Amino acid sequence: MMEIIRIPRIMQETSRHYITKSKKLGFVPTMGALHEGHLSLVRRAKDENDLVVVSIFLNPKQFGANEDLSYYPKPIESDIEKLQSINTDILFLPETSFIYPTNFCTYITVQNLSDKLCGPFRPGHFTGVTTVVCKLLNMVMPSRLYLGQKDYQQLLIIKRMVEDLNIPVEIIPCRTIREKDGLAMSSRNSYLKSKERLSATVIYKTLSYLSNLIVEKKIPCHEVKGKMKEMLLNEPLIEEIQYASIYDPETLDELDNYKKVNLLAVALKIGNTRLIDNMIVEINSVVV
Amino acid sequence: MMEIIRIPRIMQETSRHYITKSKKLGFVPTMGALHEGHLSLVRRAKDENDLVVVSIFLNPKQFGANEDLSYYPKPIESDIEKLQSINTDILFLPETSFIYPTNFCTYITVQNLSDKLCGPFRPGHFTGVTTVVCKLLNMVMPSRLYLGQKDYQQLLIIKRMVEDLNIPVEIIPCRTIREKDGLAMSSRNSYLKSKERLSATVIYKTLSYLSNLIVEKKIPCHEVKGKMKEMLLNEPLIEEIQYASIYDPETLDELDNYKKVNLLAVALKIGNTRLIDNMIVEINSVVV
Repeated sequence: MMEIIRIPRIMQETSRHYITKSKKLGFVPTMGALHEGHLSLVRRAKDENDLVVVSIFLNPKQFGANEDLSYYPKPIESDIEKLQSINTDILFLPETSFIYPTNFCTYITVQNLSDKLCGPFRPGHFTGVTTVVCKLLNMVMPSRLYLGQKDYQQLLIIKRMVEDLNIPVEIIPCRTIREKDGLAMSSRNSYLKSKERLSATVIYKTLSYLSNLIVEKKIPCHEVKGKMKEMLLNEPLIEEIQYASIYDPETLDELDNYKKVNLLAVALKIGNTRLIDNMIVEINSVVV
Repeated sequence: MMEIIRIPRIMQETSRHYITKSKKLGFVPTMGALHEGHLSLVRRAKDENDLVVVSIFLNPKQFGANEDLSYYPKPIESDIEKLQSINTDILFLPETSFIYPTNFCTYITVQNLSDKLCGPFRPGHFTGVTTVVCKLLNMVMPSRLYLGQKDYQQLLIIKRMVEDLNIPVEIIPCRTIREKDGLAMSSRNSYLKSKERLSATVIYKTLSYLSNLIVEKKIPCHEVKGKMKEMLLNEPLIEEIQYASIYDPETLDELDNYKKVNLLAVALKIGNTRLIDNMIVEINSVVV
C-alpha cells in the first residue's frame, strides 16, 4: 500500500526512521503528469533500493512568467494510480506553501552550466530546479537519486550541485524513454495537436541520422550544426529553433572538433509547445 | 583521543557510521584561531550530544579581495591543543582544494538579509558563508549546529538557509563571550595594538549603556542611533563607523519605533581592524 505524505517534516521523520534502520531509499522527483519515462525511473529505483519515494511537486520557481505553469497538466488521480500499480512505497505530495513559505529567500545557483543551452531561453529556470531539488533531497534524504537523460542539462547541473555541495546522494542517470516513433516522452507532448505530434518526430529522426553519420565518420564536426538545422527546418510546423548543435557533454560549450563523447542537443517550438531532446554520441577511438 | 579527519569523504563516512548507531553529533564550524568564544561552543556541544565535531577551515570565499585572508591568524598547533584539552571528539581539518575543487561553481544566496548591515561592506561575504556552511553540514551531518550570537547577522542568515533548504539540523545560538572589560571575543582582536585594544572597549560600553537606557525607557527609539554614533566617535582611534543603530532582529531593517525585541548592532574600524558587536534588547511589555 502506497503511503502519501504531504508535510515536509513528516517526510523527513519518515526517511530518518528508515535510515536509522539502514534502509536504502531511492528517490524520483517529478512534477506529475507521469508517463512511461517517469515510471521507468520508479521501477529502477524500486529494484535497486529497499524503498522508493516519488515526489510530485509542480515547482513554480522553475517556470518563467510567460511559461506554461498554469497549463501544465495535473492529472493527480491517474498519477496516484500509476504509482500504486508499480508498487511505489511513498508518494511525497507537498503543498506549494509548505515548500515556499512567504518569507522564503534562499536560492542555489550553479554558475556557468546554467547559462548555456536552455539557460538564456528560460532565465531563472535552473536556479528554481537546483533550489527545489536540494530542498527535496534534504526532506527525502535518499541514498540514490534517479534522473532522466532527456533533461540532459538539468541532470548535469544537479550532478554539479550535488558534488559541489557534498550532498550525500548517488545520482543515477537513466536513459531517455521514447514513443514508438522515437519522440522523447514528455509531459508536454500532450500539448501537441495531431499534426504537430507527427511533425515532432523529425527531432528524433534528425538526432539519430546525425549520430549515425558522426559514428560512421561521414560528416565533419563543423557541418553538424548546419545539417541539423536544415533537417529540422524542413519540417514546416517547426516555428523556432532555440538551439540545435553539437556540444561538449561536460561544459555544454559548442564543439568545433569531435571529442570522444559528444552531445547532440536541440530545443525548438512547434506551435506553442517547447520540446527538447538530445543524444550522446560516442566516437569509436579505433583509428582506421 | 581526538580524531583528525582531513578528507570530506571520510568525514561523511565517519558521521554516517555514528548516525546509523543513532548517535547525536554536535557541530562547531570555525576558521581556527580559537578563543574562549569558540571553546564555549565546543563545551556546550559536547555536553548536549554524544560526540562533538569541530571544523577548522579558513574559507577563502567569505573574504573579499581587499580583506584579511592572508593575515588571518593560523595557530593550528595551539588550536589542536585547545580542542584536545576540552575533549573534542573529531577535528575536521580539510584542505582548501578538497572544499573547492577547480571546477567548483555552486553558490547559495540568502536574499534580502545578506544585503543588510555587513552586506554592503563585504560583497559576496554571506554567499561565501552560506555556501561553505551548507557544504560542511552535508559533510558532518550533525544533529545540532552551534553558532555564536556575536556574528548575529551570520546566525540569522544561516538560520534562514537551514529553514528554507530544509537542512535537517537544529541550530543552537550561543551567547557572545566577552573579555573582562566587555570586548566581544574575536580572532581579529589579536590585530589590535595596545592603545587600539583599550579604545575598543568603547563598543561594549556604548551597547550596554544604551541597552540600559532603552530598558529603563529613558531614550526614544529615534535618538538611539545618534547617541550611539556620538559615544563611539568620542573615541579618537575609531576611524570609520560602518553602521551603528537599532534594528529589527528578524529583518535587520533599521527601527523607528521599538519592538518587543530589538537589536543594537555596530561595525567599525579601529586602525585597519574591523570589529563588530551587537546586543539584543528586550523591552519589558508592562505598561507603567
